[in-house]
Amino acid sequence: MADKKWPDCAKNLKGVILDMCGVLYDAGEGDGVAIPGSVEAVRKLRTSDLQLRFCTNETQASREKFVAKLGRLGYDISVSEVFSPAPAVVAVLKERGLRPHLLVHDGVLPEFDTVDKSNPNCVVIGDAAEAFTYKNMNDAFNVLTWQKKPLLISMGQGKYYKETDGLKLDVGAYTKALEYATDSKAEVIGKPSPMFYQTVLTDMKLHSHEGLMIGDDLVSDVGGAQNCGMLGVQVRTGKYRPSDENHPTVKADGTVDNLAQAVDMILSQRC
Amino acid sequence: MADKKWPDCAKNLKGVILDMCGVLYDAGEGDGVAIPGSVEAVRKLRTSDLQLRFCTNETQASREKFVAKLGRLGYDISVSEVFSPAPAVVAVLKERGLRPHLLVHDGVLPEFDTVDKSNPNCVVIGDAAEAFTYKNMNDAFNVLTWQKKPLLISMGQGKYYKETDGLKLDVGAYTKALEYATDSKAEVIGKPSPMFYQTVLTDMKLHSHEGLMIGDDLVSDVGGAQNCGMLGVQVRTGKYRPSDENHPTVKADGTVDNLAQAVDMILSQRC
Repeated sequence: MADKKWPDCAKNLKGVILDMCGVLYDAGEGDGVAIPGSVEAVRKLRTSDLQLRFCTNETQASREKFVAKLGRLGYDISVSEVFSPAPAVVAVLKERGLRPHLLVHDGVLPEFDTVDKSNPNCVVIGDAAEAFTYKNMNDAFNVLTWQKKPLLISMGQGKYYKETDGLKLDVGAYTKALEYATDSKAEVIGKPSPMFYQTVLTDMKLHSHEGLMIGDDLVSDVGGAQNCGMLGVQVRTGKYRPSDENHPTVKADGTVDNLAQAVDMILSQRC
Repeated sequence: MADKKWPDCAKNLKGVILDMCGVLYDAGEGDGVAIPGSVEAVRKLRTSDLQLRFCTNETQASREKFVAKLGRLGYDISVSEVFSPAPAVVAVLKERGLRPHLLVHDGVLPEFDTVDKSNPNCVVIGDAAEAFTYKNMNDAFNVLTWQKKPLLISMGQGKYYKETDGLKLDVGAYTKALEYATDSKAEVIGKPSPMFYQTVLTDMKLHSHEGLMIGDDLVSDVGGAQNCGMLGVQVRTGKYRPSDENHPTVKADGTVDNLAQAVDMILSQRC
């Protein structure tokens, strides 16, 4: 039982999964800004025997562009280490022979280059941000509403995220709007879907209890990972709010000031 | 029991309430278009002994402008006969000392002229249409999210409506987006709120069983009126869909091709 408590539980870890926005950087104009100490923390993790993956619901850019941006902020991350919804959605579309109407950010369009988008029979919604215009929402709604059984695939169910100039509505809010208007329930691909987390564990060839997720979103990152059998630690950066520490249903295994502190606590258990 | 069945039940009516969009006209570019036969049907109703009121969730224009538009389509309607959410919301705001941030169509702003909008402590959402930009949604979200207990007042909960160039998302869809993002439940003022229908009945000094609502929206018009004790008849114009006639929870007292047919059937019971 003692080993289950943070940070003792870090002794038995074999892999760490990091959320990106709010843990590595805060989004905003241009590339956003790295969160103090996080660049060095990722470097320290790489010197340990722990496996490392990155798991994001970022759907405003292709992974290539996203990794390049993080490079400019000081992070050395490769595309193959990054798990994001778009490639997972593309796999599902191809497997099921679906042709999407895309309500997504221009930046993520390259991920869908190989997908047949003619005569759409479903809608894929991502964090389209400024592209969440009334016209674009109506276009997606009209595709859905003329289907016998509307199929809406949502890349995440986040409520909001923080940019340097304030909180912004995330894909989950707009998904709810379309669900309500079409009397349907979206299929979510991305955090906190257990299937999505399982893909990352499988890639590391780990059992769930050997993995730890670190994120700023209590419900999606921490709760989602815990639902999957992993440990979940919340950082007090990004979208963290003090009220998270008294959440009615989700309790983090640990709460730390930032990624740097989390990594120091983990590594100190493993000397 | 026989008297309860449409159209026999029209014998005991004392007042008729008409939905406007989809019954009197179809919205679209400019003033939209009158639905064939409806102008004449309203005239016929006025020659009867039935009281007549109009009940709309229209929140794109002030009642003055709205009535003027209907005048250009051939309808002779006075502002005092029209019940719409904005004046009802203004009454609630003043009664409770609330200062709204308005996420509404420019056209309805004059209804809020007399309301203090400084330092807002709630959000009022209407059918803002093109004004449902990402920025405007975020502004409303940020007002709500920094309140201890977010208060969102929604002028209706419609899912969509029909314009001449297709179906458009209505205020209810965007309300759901903000409810989800803020973990809150909106107060709805407008159809199908029983309080809203009761206001119309009170104005006519009628008991609910003496009133009949005619609308194109099965759930909001027909079901809402029935929940209030009135009869509800659906027209096969506007947003009507054949599947409405097999709806799992709402069954109209009668279904007619259009307002003209409904009025002829009502008046033929009263000769």
